[in-house]
Formats: sequence, structure tokens, C-alpha cells
Amino acid sequence: MLEKLDLSKRIDKETYKSTRKEQSERLGLLQRNCKEAKIPVMIVFEGMGASGKGTQINRLIQALDPRGFDVYANDKSTEEEQMRPFLWRFWTKLPAQGRIALFDRSWYRQVTIERFEGKIPETALPEAFHDIQSFERQLTDDGMVIIKLFLYISREDQKKRFNKLESSGETEWRVTKEDWRRNKEYGRYLAVCEEMLEKTDMDYAPWTIIEASDRDFASAKIITQVADCLEDALKHRLLRGERKEKEVPVRSGKYQNGVLSGVDLTKSISKEAYKKEMERLKEKLESLHSQIYRLRIPVVLGFEGWDAAGKGGAIKRLTSHLDPRGYKVYPTSAPNDLERVHHYLWRFWNHVPKAGHIAIFDRTWYGRVLVERIEGFCTEAQWKQAYQEINEMENHMANAGAVVIKFWLHIDKAEQEKRFKERQVDPAKQWKITEEDWRNREKWEQYESAVNEMLVRTSTSYAPWVVVEGNCKYYARIKVLKTVVEALEAKIKEKKIDP
Amino acid sequence: MLEKLDLSKRIDKETYKSTRKEQSERLGLLQRNCKEAKIPVMIVFEGMGASGKGTQINRLIQALDPRGFDVYANDKSTEEEQMRPFLWRFWTKLPAQGRIALFDRSWYRQVTIERFEGKIPETALPEAFHDIQSFERQLTDDGMVIIKLFLYISREDQKKRFNKLESSGETEWRVTKEDWRRNKEYGRYLAVCEEMLEKTDMDYAPWTIIEASDRDFASAKIITQVADCLEDALKHRLLRGERKEKEVPVRSGKYQNGVLSGVDLTKSISKEAYKKEMERLKEKLESLHSQIYRLRIPVVLGFEGWDAAGKGGAIKRLTSHLDPRGYKVYPTSAPNDLERVHHYLWRFWNHVPKAGHIAIFDRTWYGRVLVERIEGFCTEAQWKQAYQEINEMENHMANAGAVVIKFWLHIDKAEQEKRFKERQVDPAKQWKITEEDWRNREKWEQYESAVNEMLVRTSTSYAPWVVVEGNCKYYARIKVLKTVVEALEAKIKEKKIDP
Repeated sequence: MLEKLDLSKRIDKETYKSTRKEQSERLGLLQRNCKEAKIPVMIVFEGMGASGKGTQINRLIQALDPRGFDVYANDKSTEEEQMRPFLWRFWTKLPAQGRIALFDRSWYRQVTIERFEGKIPETALPEAFHDIQSFERQLTDDGMVIIKLFLYISREDQKKRFNKLESSGETEWRVTKEDWRRNKEYGRYLAVCEEMLEKTDMDYAPWTIIEASDRDFASAKIITQVADCLEDALKHRLLRGERKEKEVPVRSGKYQNGVLSGVDLTKSISKEAYKKEMERLKEKLESLHSQIYRLRIPVVLGFEGWDAAGKGGAIKRLTSHLDPRGYKVYPTSAPNDLERVHHYLWRFWNHVPKAGHIAIFDRTWYGRVLVERIEGFCTEAQWKQAYQEINEMENHMANAGAVVIKFWLHIDKAEQEKRFKERQVDPAKQWKITEEDWRNREKWEQYESAVNEMLVRTSTSYAPWVVVEGNCKYYARIKVLKTVVEALEAKIKEKKIDP
Repeated sequence: MLEKLDLSKRIDKETYKSTRKEQSERLGLLQRNCKEAKIPVMIVFEGMGASGKGTQINRLIQALDPRGFDVYANDKSTEEEQMRPFLWRFWTKLPAQGRIALFDRSWYRQVTIERFEGKIPETALPEAFHDIQSFERQLTDDGMVIIKLFLYISREDQKKRFNKLESSGETEWRVTKEDWRRNKEYGRYLAVCEEMLEKTDMDYAPWTIIEASDRDFASAKIITQVADCLEDALKHRLLRGERKEKEVPVRSGKYQNGVLSGVDLTKSISKEAYKKEMERLKEKLESLHSQIYRLRIPVVLGFEGWDAAGKGGAIKRLTSHLDPRGYKVYPTSAPNDLERVHHYLWRFWNHVPKAGHIAIFDRTWYGRVLVERIEGFCTEAQWKQAYQEINEMENHMANAGAVVIKFWLHIDKAEQEKRFKERQVDPAKQWKITEEDWRNREKWEQYESAVNEMLVRTSTSYAPWVVVEGNCKYYARIKVLKTVVEALEAKIKEKKIDP
């Protein structure tokens, strides 16, 4: 998902200055309140080399009362530390209640850099992740606030920064050959980081991805994010006790990860090209379908997207050439009485496809973090927890050999309006458009913010999100079929190699 | 720990009948209340073959309103089930809110029977355990009550029961050759079960061990335990909302796992034998100490026990021949101000020994589940959670190569009184005895119940509890030194084989 992020985000000097002034005052106040409320805080800075962790820490602490925090740089562990369990160095650095500890790199070194360098055996990874999860769970259960920031820059950007550092005698020492190696094998290192983010993005200690190409933008996002987290922590201290948590309004999302904003909606293809390509793909799909049946590969396809984004049309084209005995389409609407008295994932578990079969979901379990979140049908704790629960469910299916793909059909607000209006005048489509569609449309920004968070938190190596540029229906349908065809081919190949 | 349980527990027909009558009424009422409160309940029956799971389920449901529960027998998975992720068959059997589902064997098959039979590769185990943990966590987070019962009988007992079953044409089919294999390799199967119990004994879904040699005793314990759990669940539904949970009085412990009751306190040795053996062990220990230093093996020894049980004396004998540069003794008393503003495990993490060094704790982190539990210094949720937190900490140390042993020095109430009185008259020992010691003594039964639970929940393969028969000081000291010597020898051997 990282590579899908919009790294072009910038902020001008003026905006930065004003944001910084305003947020610094806010943060200073929040720090004092946390001190009073005896809330201990850990702020973790991880990310790509030369993404500016040091600079950002320095900028952040300007806003803090120096009597209230400590900064720890965590390079390779010392001899003292190597002679003890690896979490020891961090347990001994825990901030006392009311204090803040900032970590320049942290307990994630093992599962990122050292894994990349092959210093930790792959077999030791599950244990390492488990140790990290219980460490953070134990601390947060005890009232610790853990804020985890991952600073992300592109390979090219990193290369530029390394060269710049090396060009000066004062800074060249800061670029090691390990740094260069991670730049040369950027893709492989990225994969390692993404698995780390997937495995450790817990509801009790979530990650925030910082687009760090523009230092000022990053600083503004970091200071705002840290302040938001402290505010939440204080709020929950007060709220703790109430039966049902108050629903927190979705934030302005000024600094949300801009996955959607990075999507190029001008993509399109001609009707002729569409027809030709569609024929080719349908035939391919037909033969692949019988192969996955013989090879007993289960397939789970989820469709989400804006109203009128074309989910139905895409599903229709996808299934038109499939053997009806081999697939099922499950439309998802509001839960019925029986579903309402079960866990929200229960109804989807009931539709898990048999090996060799395809299950297509028109709207999915992601309703929990979209409509249920926005409409307040579940508590904040519940939808925050859902990211992990959903990842665990999809991971479980993938481990059972399933192909799991989720499509987000994306269109812009103008295109939606156009389609809504068409539907109103077309007697054949009028049933498709309701008052509610217009009401949802009014919440576009809230949904956009929720979708961005969903895409970042739940697009995983084992169950990726595919954002489909949907303004041109032809283009969208082709992309959907193409994605499915390629995923099935890959899985079949894999299965034939190691059955 | 299982093999340490007292399986001699019996209950006479009369007591059973009256208990059953009384608890059946209670359970019936609780079931109705849970239905009203919309609390879904899962009751899991696992355990040794022929331990009477079927019988016990039948007896239990007699007390339940048949319209409110379902029973599921989970033998080998069907073809339908094998074609789906292994948790699917259980997700689809979830009880609706207000209903009860009973499982004769469950999602634990994989990590017990199938692991024992080598049907699941060891490398797949961490994932299997992780799947089980998240499954139970997701359900309990959603308000499910999960009651897990493990029925335990001895190898001999099992053999008798198999033979009895086979002696009748009607029942012989029930004994398979797999059953016999697990009886022949009872020890290996036990180890598999114990690891399963360790890894899945979560505060949100704890295990209850049922001594099942006597069917009536087991039935009485099960029905009482189930009723207690439902009562707790209802109580928490009401409590949920209050800032601090009310401390629940430790239960009568009528059916507590009788680890202590099974300890033979008559064990003793003569002064002469003691002296001779002590000399031998001290010399051994001396040489072992220098070896673990060279091999860089860290050692963690924890001492808990009744007041005046002889912790001090044992530690003195243990250290008298050790090189003072190689070990440290940490006495643990009430936390100081700095400790009080940190996580309760923090102060112990600060004393984690370097590789090659020995850390001896006179009283330990187990205060959380003993004095803090009894005196209400922490909430019920906190001490219940502590079992898992402590196991995770000790597991982390063990994985870092440490030898971790915990000693419970055990004496009976009469012996303690004798020693208290001696201390009062002996000027050299008067300082050792305070008013508080007498006060604690009054809570003997509460502590006994807490100690029994602690021993069962935290005695693990990687950090075992050793219960030391302490009425004879000589015997106790020898047993402590002997245990340490043998553990060090074993570790050194292991380390030399695979450094």
C-alpha cells in the first residue's frame, strides 16, 4: 500500500509557520494535562533512511516542556544490551506516568533492518512479532499511550538525500553502505517494512504513515497527529466509565494518507479497445475458472466503492462467462435480525467459499469501518479494533490457500452527480437511486477520510486492495477482470510448483 | 503442572446429589438471566481420552433449558469442512446472543491430537496458536463468554477405562488405536497438552482444569464452575461502566485445583544426611557457576512462599558458595514511589540478569496475583490479566537463553504457628515477626486459593514452579539446591550441544 501513497504533498512556508505556532501551543497544553492525568506516552519514529527522523524529533520537542520528556536514539544494541533479552533496553526506558519518551528507531529494528540484512532467521519472526505485540499490549493495558510514526519517502528521493549528505564532509559519515544497500534493494526493503506494518498495526497501538518528501508537511502532520492522540487519550480517561463510548467525529483529515487523492481518474479506453480486450479476458477467465476448480483454489472477491461507481456492472462482466455452479454473488445490505445477534463477521464467515469455488461480495465486511463508523452504528473502539479483526480473518483465509482481493471502485464527486442524475431520468435505472444516496453524498469528505484509513490499514500482502479508476466504466471493468485473471494465474502457477 | 495435580479428589453420593440440586437451580436461573442480558456463551470440553467428556456434557445440560443451547461433537473435520479454513466450522456454529453452545472437543484438536500424530508440521504451530488466540479474543471482545474445561485423568486410570470399554461389545468401538497410542505415549501427549494450555490460557478465555478421576467430583466442579462464570459475566455486564472494578472475594475454592493439598509435608531428612548432601551440592554449584559464566547463561531464580517458610535460609545456603561477582539477590517489598508510577513489571525488568549472571528474587512479580489480589491493591481485571503478562515475560527471558525457576516454599498452618512463636521468644529473630505476619495468617485460605491458581496458570515448560516441601528445613534446602544444580547441568549440556 505504501507505494500507492501520494508523496507529492507539499505545504507552503506560511501555512507551516501558522500551523506550527497553533499546534505548538495546543501540544504544550496537552502535555501539561497529560502530566496531571499521569498519562505516560511513548512516541516511536521509524521509517526509511534519510526520511528525516532526527530533524522531525528536534522540531517536535521544540513544542514540549523539556522537563517532561526524554529522547532515546536506538542504534545497534550495545554489548550490555546484547547480554539481555531484546526488550530489556526498552522496558528500562519506559516513561514514568506523566512523562513522554521519544524513540529514534525502536523495538522494530529486529523485524525491519536486521531481518532485511538476514541477521534474524525467518523462523524467529513469528516470535519476534509476538513479543512486540505483547509488549505494546501490556503497556497500553496499563494506560501507556503509544504513538507510532512511519516516515516514508520514495527511492529516488532517498537517493538524492544520500548523495547530498555524502557531498559534505560533515555529513558523509551518516550514510553507510547498509543505507545504500537498502536503497539499491528498495523494493525488497519496502516489502519487509510493509509486513512489519501489517503485523503490528494494532487497535491499541496503530501506525501513522507520514509522507516525508516535504519536511514541512511532515512536521505539520506529525505535530498535529501527536496532539490529536494526546487529546484522545485525555478524552478516554474522562470517558472511561461510560457504558458506550461517544462517537468521535471523523477528523478534518487535513493530513490523512492521500491514497485516493493520488488516483488518476482520467484513465480511460475506447469502446473498441474495450470490446476486444473484454473478449480476450473472458475467455481466459473461463479456462482459469475450471483450473482453480480442479486445483481446489478458493477465491474471495470483495467489491466496495462510491454509490454509482459501477460495482454492479463490473461484477456482471466478471461473472458472465463463469460456470454458475462455481461461483456465488452475495449482496450485503443492513444486517437482518439473526445477523444482528451475532458477531459482525459471522454472516461473512457463513459465505466463505469451498476450495475451488469463487465468492463475490457486493459490499463487504468493510461496512464496519465505513458506514457503521460514519453513522455511529458501532463504537469508536469497535471500528478501530475492526482493522485488525478483518486482517486476521483475511489472513486466515489466505493461509488456507485462498486468493483474496478487494476492489475499491473510485469515481469523483462530479462523476457521481452526473450518474445520479442520469439514473433519475432513466426509467430503467430509477430504482437504483434513492434519497439515501443523496444523503450519503453529503458525507463524501467523511467517507473519503474513512476510506483512506481503511485502504492503508487493511491492504496487505495476502489480501491487497486494488483501487479501480472508475470515471471510465470501460477502463474500470477491464482493470477488474485483468486483476482477477493475473491473480488466478499467479496462484495456479504457485500451486503447481508446490501443491 | 498437570502431573502435580491431586487426582485423589472424591465426593460422596450425598454431597454430589445436594450440590447438583443446588447448583442446577442456580444454573437454570443464570441461564435465564444471560438470555435476557443477551450474553452468548461457549463451553468447551477438552481433555484426555475416556476422561468422560460425553458423560459430563450430558450431566451438565440436564440443568439447562433445552430451548437455549446446542451441543456440537467435533470429531475429525468433514470433507465440507476440510474444504474451508479450519475456523470456519466454528464460526458458523457461534451461539446467538442469549444462547449457549457446548463443544465436545473443539478448535483445539489441531494443536493437541493432530500435533501429537504429526499431522500438522511444527512450523505451522505458531500460526495455529495465533489463529486460536485471535478467534477467542475477537469473540470475547464482542461479549461472548468462553468457558474452557480440560478434563484430566492419570495414565493408569485411562488404561483401566479403555479396557473396561473394550470388554463390552457395545462400547469397544469407542476405543481406537489412536487412543491406545496416546495412552502408551502418555507423557509425550501430556507435554503437547500442557503447551496448548500454556499458550491459550488467556485472561479473556482462561482454562479450568477438571480432576476427572471421580465422575461425581468432576460433575460437581463443572456445574459450579460454569455457574460461577455466568454469574461473573452478568456481574461485569452491570459493572461495565464503573471506573474501577469491584474486587471479587476469592471463592471458597471448594473445587480449586489442589496442587498444595497434594504436597507431602512429611518429607524430611536427618541432620547428618543433610550436611553430607549439602557439601556435595555446594561444590557442584561452585563449578557450575563458573561454567554458566563462561557459557554466558543467564539465570533467574524466584522465591515465594508462606511467611516463615524458610525462603531466607534457602537463599543463604544457595549463595554461600557462589562468587559474589556473579550473582545478586533482590529482596522485593512494597513498591516505592518511582516504582509505583511505572508498570508493575518494570522494577523486575530492571533487574534482569546479564548473560552469565544469576538474579535471585526474594519475593517476586507474583505479588501481583498474591498480596495485590488478596488485599485489593489491583483490580480483578488486572490480576487476571497478570498470569498471561507474567508468562510472556518469563517466556521472553527463556527464549533469550535464560534458566528460569520459581520456588514455592510450602509449610502447613501448624508449622507456621510453631515458627512464629519461636521467633517471638528468640531475641535474634524477633525482628522477623510482625503484627502483619499474624494478620496475613488469618487470610491463609484466601492465599491458598490464590497460590493454587497461580501454580496452575504460571507453571510452564520454560519457567516451571517447584513446590518445596518445607516443614523440614533440611529437606527444603536440599531440594532447592538440587533443583538448581540439575537445571544448570541440563542447560549447560543443551548449550554445549547447540551453542
